Amino acid sequence: MAVSELKRTLIGKPFPTSQEIHERLDKVRALAVFASDPISSNAYATEAIMSVLIVLGSGALSLTLPLAMGVALLVLMVVFSYIQTILHYPDGGGAYTVAKDNLGKYPSLLAGAALLIDYVLTVSVSVAAGVRAVTSAIPAAYSHRVLIALLAIALITWVNLRGVRESGTVFALPTYAFVTGVLLTIAIGLLRYAGLFGLAPLPTFAESVPATNSIMGVAYVWLLLRAFAGGCTALTGIEAISNGVKAFKAPEAKNAALTMVAMGVIAMSLFVGITFLSTRMHLVPTEHGESILSQMTRQIAGSGILYYWVQTFTALILFLAANTGYQDFPRLSSFLANDGFLPRWMQNRGDRLVFSSGIVVLAIISALIVILFQADEIAMLPLYALGVMLSFTLSQSGMARLMGKIGKLQVGESAETANTKIHYEKNWRWKQALNIVGAITTGVVFIILMATKFVDGAWIVVLAIPLFVLLFDRINKHYKMVGQTLSTNQFVEDDLVDVANVVIVPVADIHRGTLRALQYAKRIASDVRAVCIATTPTIHQRIEARWAEFPKLTADVKLVIIDYDYRDILTPLVDYVETVNHDEFPNRLITVVIPEFVATDRIYDVLHNQTANLMRRRLRVEHENVIVIDVPYHIPSAKQDV
Amino acid sequence: MAVSELKRTLIGKPFPTSQEIHERLDKVRALAVFASDPISSNAYATEAIMSVLIVLGSGALSLTLPLAMGVALLVLMVVFSYIQTILHYPDGGGAYTVAKDNLGKYPSLLAGAALLIDYVLTVSVSVAAGVRAVTSAIPAAYSHRVLIALLAIALITWVNLRGVRESGTVFALPTYAFVTGVLLTIAIGLLRYAGLFGLAPLPTFAESVPATNSIMGVAYVWLLLRAFAGGCTALTGIEAISNGVKAFKAPEAKNAALTMVAMGVIAMSLFVGITFLSTRMHLVPTEHGESILSQMTRQIAGSGILYYWVQTFTALILFLAANTGYQDFPRLSSFLANDGFLPRWMQNRGDRLVFSSGIVVLAIISALIVILFQADEIAMLPLYALGVMLSFTLSQSGMARLMGKIGKLQVGESAETANTKIHYEKNWRWKQALNIVGAITTGVVFIILMATKFVDGAWIVVLAIPLFVLLFDRINKHYKMVGQTLSTNQFVEDDLVDVANVVIVPVADIHRGTLRALQYAKRIASDVRAVCIATTPTIHQRIEARWAEFPKLTADVKLVIIDYDYRDILTPLVDYVETVNHDEFPNRLITVVIPEFVATDRIYDVLHNQTANLMRRRLRVEHENVIVIDVPYHIPSAKQDV
Repeated sequence: MAVSELKRTLIGKPFPTSQEIHERLDKVRALAVFASDPISSNAYATEAIMSVLIVLGSGALSLTLPLAMGVALLVLMVVFSYIQTILHYPDGGGAYTVAKDNLGKYPSLLAGAALLIDYVLTVSVSVAAGVRAVTSAIPAAYSHRVLIALLAIALITWVNLRGVRESGTVFALPTYAFVTGVLLTIAIGLLRYAGLFGLAPLPTFAESVPATNSIMGVAYVWLLLRAFAGGCTALTGIEAISNGVKAFKAPEAKNAALTMVAMGVIAMSLFVGITFLSTRMHLVPTEHGESILSQMTRQIAGSGILYYWVQTFTALILFLAANTGYQDFPRLSSFLANDGFLPRWMQNRGDRLVFSSGIVVLAIISALIVILFQADEIAMLPLYALGVMLSFTLSQSGMARLMGKIGKLQVGESAETANTKIHYEKNWRWKQALNIVGAITTGVVFIILMATKFVDGAWIVVLAIPLFVLLFDRINKHYKMVGQTLSTNQFVEDDLVDVANVVIVPVADIHRGTLRALQYAKRIASDVRAVCIATTPTIHQRIEARWAEFPKLTADVKLVIIDYDYRDILTPLVDYVETVNHDEFPNRLITVVIPEFVATDRIYDVLHNQTANLMRRRLRVEHENVIVIDVPYHIPSAKQDV
Repeated sequence: MAVSELKRTLIGKPFPTSQEIHERLDKVRALAVFASDPISSNAYATEAIMSVLIVLGSGALSLTLPLAMGVALLVLMVVFSYIQTILHYPDGGGAYTVAKDNLGKYPSLLAGAALLIDYVLTVSVSVAAGVRAVTSAIPAAYSHRVLIALLAIALITWVNLRGVRESGTVFALPTYAFVTGVLLTIAIGLLRYAGLFGLAPLPTFAESVPATNSIMGVAYVWLLLRAFAGGCTALTGIEAISNGVKAFKAPEAKNAALTMVAMGVIAMSLFVGITFLSTRMHLVPTEHGESILSQMTRQIAGSGILYYWVQTFTALILFLAANTGYQDFPRLSSFLANDGFLPRWMQNRGDRLVFSSGIVVLAIISALIVILFQADEIAMLPLYALGVMLSFTLSQSGMARLMGKIGKLQVGESAETANTKIHYEKNWRWKQALNIVGAITTGVVFIILMATKFVDGAWIVVLAIPLFVLLFDRINKHYKMVGQTLSTNQFVEDDLVDVANVVIVPVADIHRGTLRALQYAKRIASDVRAVCIATTPTIHQRIEARWAEFPKLTADVKLVIIDYDYRDILTPLVDYVETVNHDEFPNRLITVVIPEFVATDRIYDVLHNQTANLMRRRLRVEHENVIVIDVPYHIPSAKQDV
């Protein structure tokens, strides 16, 4: 088949299950793999703060730096709190696992829903921001940004469906190149700012409009909170390492914790550096067009090699950040599917050992968001970071609970929770206190995010999270019902419903297809009944005459002709089947054999089997004790020889 | 079921086939039924000419009248030519039938395609024009015109799905009210124009901009042809009577012919009257907004009762004209379906004895056109009338052929064609000459329409007509192939493929569903094989252990466990079935029993049977000798009791 060949070409040949490799990452490569998302936030986080403050006049942009410092502090707190998680869940402890282990079903579903939504947004936001990096350098491409973004998503999807095998190395280059480029720019900028080495002093742009005094009091605080909320997008992706502890070389937990620290330090250095310089240079975010990072780099380093270096690797690291969504979303959805909260097929690995269904679902949803928001990441940001902040809160509350359990242990004692082992720890109170502070802080930030961004789009997420939880719950209840219904616990082999020795064959006309069906029916039962609904006397006579032409096949078959004065032949057919099942063979399985045309060209299917399809559907859903057998009769393609 | 109850409420209870009534119409009601389409064209035909001429300056609008006279002449010629058709095809002789009878398959398909397209446009154009009549009177409704048009289509569709039983009476009122209202307006207008009875002379509007001399020669002629083409929309619907001769009271053909004459005279009186007065009053078509007829009526009769009378019945007659599309399209498509050129289900009458499928198809396509053209009938006009003109040409060519056949008869001799009886006629040469002139004239007009409106949208129709013919042809070839394949002509009862005594049951797990399937399989064959694809050693062992738990049911069943190192379990399953079919039982039918979950809530189906569905589809299309049996196992709704 053409489709499967195309699939082979695009995706590559299947990998055997036994070939699954568990690549271990050293710290250098691990940092590159996991940090691309938080580090790449620097491409837009400063701008997200500024675009709120600009309402107060460009003079108010000087408030960007203190707000950025606040965000950086929050990041460091989350990082150190997550280190506890890593050390206590060495098998991988995402917010979903930690909440499930310590807080119960609904908090874990809440965390799962919040994170899934955020992972989708990671893809949409990162791709859109990556495209902005491209269009900042090449303004002519701006009008094609949605198309470029969709192509980027298609490319990332394709790479992930093929399965990324040597991801570490691929990731290392753009991540470190981006960090180096931006750090170099910041360094030159700081030197020029300080007037050292005889470098030209920094240019200052955009006449500062002093902060308007018209906005005061509550409204002023509200705007500051909104700006802070904007900066919180820098926190997304921090939790990724805690999910992937097992990907590290031994000692896994320790290496993961060290990598986490490095990630936090690097990401925040860039964030504070960019914010400091861009506010000192009085850069102003533009409605559509050049990003703050692009403006800053251009002014500091000119439009030379360094500028294009930074822009190129900004775009690349953002596309890589989108790629982390492709790691996180399918993994988390496979966890949820495994626990029966999402369709079971989401836990199946595809031909290339990746969670193909999760990848495809993610690609579709994130592409829709990109189209809906016209690839404008600034417009998407109000939806973003909300989920991740909720998951922080839940994960840290869970950790605080875990510390409580640890505190109850005797010195040297060990215990097991559902998902991890715990041992007595001397300083559990301090750790618990840190987690409680972390939970409260991120909880407050979550409320700030929700409140300040609510009307800008956060309401969508606030609405979507409980809807997802409801969906998970429904799916779970259904699977439980399936399990109960199918369970063989109280099953006695004689319980099974008997099969009645009767087959009903609906016939509209006598032709090779129906004769074949009759022959099959005679093979499996001795009481065979051909049922024909005659809507006109002509049809009645015709069927009787045709029937007589095949004495051998129709021998021992009862011909039931039902005269019917309406055109809806389905109703009397189903009625007949019901009567036979309920009156003649109650509590037994009866069989209906439907002759069916199969067109070799699928497109011709619309010309056939309308009644057969409707009948099969009705019997299937309404009558458990009716077995439907399709006897196919193939119609060759007309093109060949007519 | 909720759906079927809703259907009952909306559509009403089914009518028995025997209750089909053949209502006969007297001439007064028949005129109302058949003439609403051509008479209603007066709501836009004058405007269609003017909107082209306006390019030459408003002074050029005085050319509207001569062009309208040309159109009126054309109409009268077509009317008299069609009277011949009516007299020779008393059983109904639409262009499709006449072309089929005299010109052969492809000309008839051409006529069928052209007419079907035109009937769809009749609905879209008439509804849009009806909405314009509403918004001319109530300008505030203009911004909701697409919605109003869609509601009108929905209403007409609903009425037609219920089946219009007393259509004649319903149609009579608006048609005659419209004719009376407009004739009254014209009469008053003419009296005021002539200055009789002391009435105020007619106002003259819009300073005449003299015809620009910049457009000369070929371009000038081209514009005149375009304007004439615009006026030809008045010809649509004329052919309707020829299709419906059988709806008349006896003597059918004579009554139909007389009605046709009356229709032509009335429609053309209105057309010429409206055109004469509106050009004398120097009315100018406006880009969006008030129609010419509305302007004229308002100026002649003031904004009083007569104005609202005319506007109301303009809207109503236009909606009724749309309704004629609902008579013509389903009838013609049922003819085509009956001849095997459209899906057979299009010839089935629904619960209320109407061609429901045709009605629904028509509603969908015309609604799409209304949306696409934003309910602007002037924009749709370039697509309109093209099909009807082609069908005139074909129908009259066919009639000329028929006259040739008649000419070959001896005095008093009779003969039969496929669709009608012919007798010797003395003056056949004159009639044939009339038909030839008619065919040539309408053929030339068709070319003019096509050429002048090509870039404005006619290309769509020019492209669509042959595509439809191709589609009809393809469908017909397919049905022929079906007929050949199923034919029992050379059928010998022993030819049928033997049924092998083997059943394959794919199992993924042992539960009540699979046990039921096994039990059924054992009932219909003695060689039963349960096939399990084990993708991991754990699954392999588990299945073996579970199997041993049910010794009674699994007795005499062979358990085939296939270890497979990939995740795509469909491939080894299908491979196994293929091997059994080709190697063990070549040229025999083998049976596959698939255990299937049926969720009582259909929405949960997405959680089940993905593999079963794929497998059924593959076996069904690729393997004619494999019979697939679904053994359903019902999963109750989770809401009830979990």
